[in-house]
Amino acid sequence: MITALDHIAIAVPDFEKAIKRFMEDFGLTFNGTEDVVAAKTSTAFFPLPETQIELVHPLNGEGPIAGYLEKKGGGLHHLCFRSDNIEEDVARLKEKGYQFLGDAPTPGAHGSKVIFIHPKSCDGVLIEINQPADDHH
Amino acid sequence: MITALDHIAIAVPDFEKAIKRFMEDFGLTFNGTEDVVAAKTSTAFFPLPETQIELVHPLNGEGPIAGYLEKKGGGLHHLCFRSDNIEEDVARLKEKGYQFLGDAPTPGAHGSKVIFIHPKSCDGVLIEINQPADDHH
Repeated sequence: MITALDHIAIAVPDFEKAIKRFMEDFGLTFNGTEDVVAAKTSTAFFPLPETQIELVHPLNGEGPIAGYLEKKGGGLHHLCFRSDNIEEDVARLKEKGYQFLGDAPTPGAHGSKVIFIHPKSCDGVLIEINQPADDHH
Repeated sequence: MITALDHIAIAVPDFEKAIKRFMEDFGLTFNGTEDVVAAKTSTAFFPLPETQIELVHPLNGEGPIAGYLEKKGGGLHHLCFRSDNIEEDVARLKEKGYQFLGDAPTPGAHGSKVIFIHPKSCDGVLIEINQPADDHH
């Protein structure tokens, strides 16, 4: 039986820089590194509390996901971190040199505010930051 | 402040089929769908208990991750589901038509057993199944 999502793996070209990013810039807990000789990989782990898988599909065959599917057929699309103060996080990350898609957070579903970090600022991973309307998500 | 990983988004070409996959084949809880008109997407949510982000980097510049980085520069690489009986899950999923990379689970780190499902069986997402040595991971 499948009992859990063990991990989400991100391939990174600069190991130390990526560890620093998730520790310092995203504030995750760092559980250390481990070399897996059999797989010829160095690994670094960041435990996370509960999350969710979101399937995304074009509504009425239109929009950005339609374009993505046309090009790639499907796949892991983005990670979304939740924020309790999105303006503050965006300002902080901009100061660190992160580039965003759009200048400021825009309205999302149910009164939330959302913004995306450009994948080139995160080793090719599209990262969304989302602040729910009431912060009791 | 970043407070959580809100979700992991997977773009899927066949919405109903993908919902069925994660419910029936992977046994996740299904929390329903929602159309987000502003984003022109239909979404489906599957809550997950605690997980972790794993950064993967080539050890000594070799191996499969080195090839991936050379081709793509970095990015979301795979999801790993944990199993308490990997042989049973592999047999069950093979019966449903899933194709695997390799015939049977192989030894992973710390006495674990691992196998990967071919991305073409999961809308372009590389999915690993992992059974820890002692099942108390």
